[in-house]
Amino acid sequence: MSEKSTKVAIIGSGTIGLSFAALHLVKNDAAHVTIFDTRPDLAEYVKRHLPGYIDVQDSGQYMKRLTIARTQAEAVENANVVQEQGPEKLDFKISIWREIEEHAPKDALFWSSTSGIPASQQCRDMRDKSRLIVVHPFNPPHIMPVLEVVPSPSTSQDVIDRTLSYWRSLGRSPVVVKKECTGFVANRLAFALFREACSLVSQGVVSVEDLDEIVTTSMGPRWAVAGPFKAYHAGGGEDGLTGFMSKIGGTVQDCWSASEEDVEREGIAVGGKWQEGVCQQAESAYGIVNTSERDEKTKKVLKAVGRG
Amino acid sequence: MSEKSTKVAIIGSGTIGLSFAALHLVKNDAAHVTIFDTRPDLAEYVKRHLPGYIDVQDSGQYMKRLTIARTQAEAVENANVVQEQGPEKLDFKISIWREIEEHAPKDALFWSSTSGIPASQQCRDMRDKSRLIVVHPFNPPHIMPVLEVVPSPSTSQDVIDRTLSYWRSLGRSPVVVKKECTGFVANRLAFALFREACSLVSQGVVSVEDLDEIVTTSMGPRWAVAGPFKAYHAGGGEDGLTGFMSKIGGTVQDCWSASEEDVEREGIAVGGKWQEGVCQQAESAYGIVNTSERDEKTKKVLKAVGRG
Repeated sequence: MSEKSTKVAIIGSGTIGLSFAALHLVKNDAAHVTIFDTRPDLAEYVKRHLPGYIDVQDSGQYMKRLTIARTQAEAVENANVVQEQGPEKLDFKISIWREIEEHAPKDALFWSSTSGIPASQQCRDMRDKSRLIVVHPFNPPHIMPVLEVVPSPSTSQDVIDRTLSYWRSLGRSPVVVKKECTGFVANRLAFALFREACSLVSQGVVSVEDLDEIVTTSMGPRWAVAGPFKAYHAGGGEDGLTGFMSKIGGTVQDCWSASEEDVEREGIAVGGKWQEGVCQQAESAYGIVNTSERDEKTKKVLKAVGRG
Repeated sequence: MSEKSTKVAIIGSGTIGLSFAALHLVKNDAAHVTIFDTRPDLAEYVKRHLPGYIDVQDSGQYMKRLTIARTQAEAVENANVVQEQGPEKLDFKISIWREIEEHAPKDALFWSSTSGIPASQQCRDMRDKSRLIVVHPFNPPHIMPVLEVVPSPSTSQDVIDRTLSYWRSLGRSPVVVKKECTGFVANRLAFALFREACSLVSQGVVSVEDLDEIVTTSMGPRWAVAGPFKAYHAGGGEDGLTGFMSKIGGTVQDCWSASEEDVEREGIAVGGKWQEGVCQQAESAYGIVNTSERDEKTKKVLKAVGRG
């Protein structure tokens, strides 16, 4: 698809929308991007903010392949791909896909950037439910390579294949999530660690800042290079993960059991008593985070592991 | 301490012991390292394997500052630091610290590399319990910057301070863990994510290899740059972590609740039914992992974030 012109309609001009627009424009020379959003100052807004996502001195050449649509119907009418990042409300998603389906070409791919509403629910009122698939990024998508590709049981294999093929041709890392589980995979994993982090800080074992320091100097760099399975498989030597579990399994289980007890005792649920103190520590430690600096460093890390 | 000569006694010549020996020799020009282990071929063994941990063409200059001790008493008799990485057995730890205390200088620091036996238990038979502290690395310590410094309630502030000061002078990242909790912090966090990973693979949501791909292209690089608190604090914009929890908290809680249900349903405990299938997947995916390649990439990542 990336060899000939790809017409991408971006629905929603928030940070995810602009970041995806920039990604298509920069990584795919043949991409023409049309943006639609209901905000009244859309053209001016996009012109002002999009260049910030395009990581070159002169973003002018990229902006030439950009169009601002006046209506959603106009945005999608010639699209090969429609990618939506609207409000995370089921009713909204259901209604726009119904309208988009009416106006878009029959073979256009429909991608939702939702972080939690499965395609099987979003497609409720569509005539052809096989066209919709979730393509969930890790923020910001113009920097982070991963894309969680989550089909519904109705999504066709052709739609899955064309979706993977497009992103691979752009050098990104699309991964198929085989079941529409709560939160998909990346957030489930990250939030599991985050819960443990909140629990340990809440117990006074370690400060917010020190916990972050531990992560950035141990599992962060490790997991930028090898994921948890590969890392522990290597840790088990010749016997791999089986060896790891038989040698270190006792410690692993002790940690899992302690974790369950602590999380329950500390009441680590969203909105619990622990939350205010932890949030205050984060505020004192970090104030306003410089995300440009973070993004620059992230790009260097990705380059170091051949993902840049 | 690093300005004048530092005599480091390394007790135990496994991979952690050799890695620490290399770290002292390479990062501290004033370090003299003595290694003791009960293995009969110790001198030959160290001579053969230690250079692999010293990351230069000619490791000869470093090896000049290395001594092989014939007895534990000899190894520690002039030491400024005694660092043990023996078997993870409480009785062993109790007995060696008692002997080490008898033979080492009065002001020598006593560091245990244990991944789980707290200093408060190891020091049981010591006359001066204030000297012992856990310094837990993330494997391999000559590459990974973090050191979890875990005092017991008896450890003196002076011992904590001198321990931090030594590692900071070597450019490492020592972090104080304020309470002797099960598994300390790094493993608790990593194993929490690992449990979720095992659960998702066990459910058939994602394969071992795809889960690793997700981690290495999203939270791995992110957490090499900013830990979870800083990352979510940034995600909350001007309102920081408080804003993040109020905007995304619903999704976070949904994930936490789903995680609890899934882990229980799948029986994700060590040795459970899930384990064999997951270990087999890891074996098929990875076989024998090339840890040299992993370490080279890790060094590049650490350099990219200014931790190299």
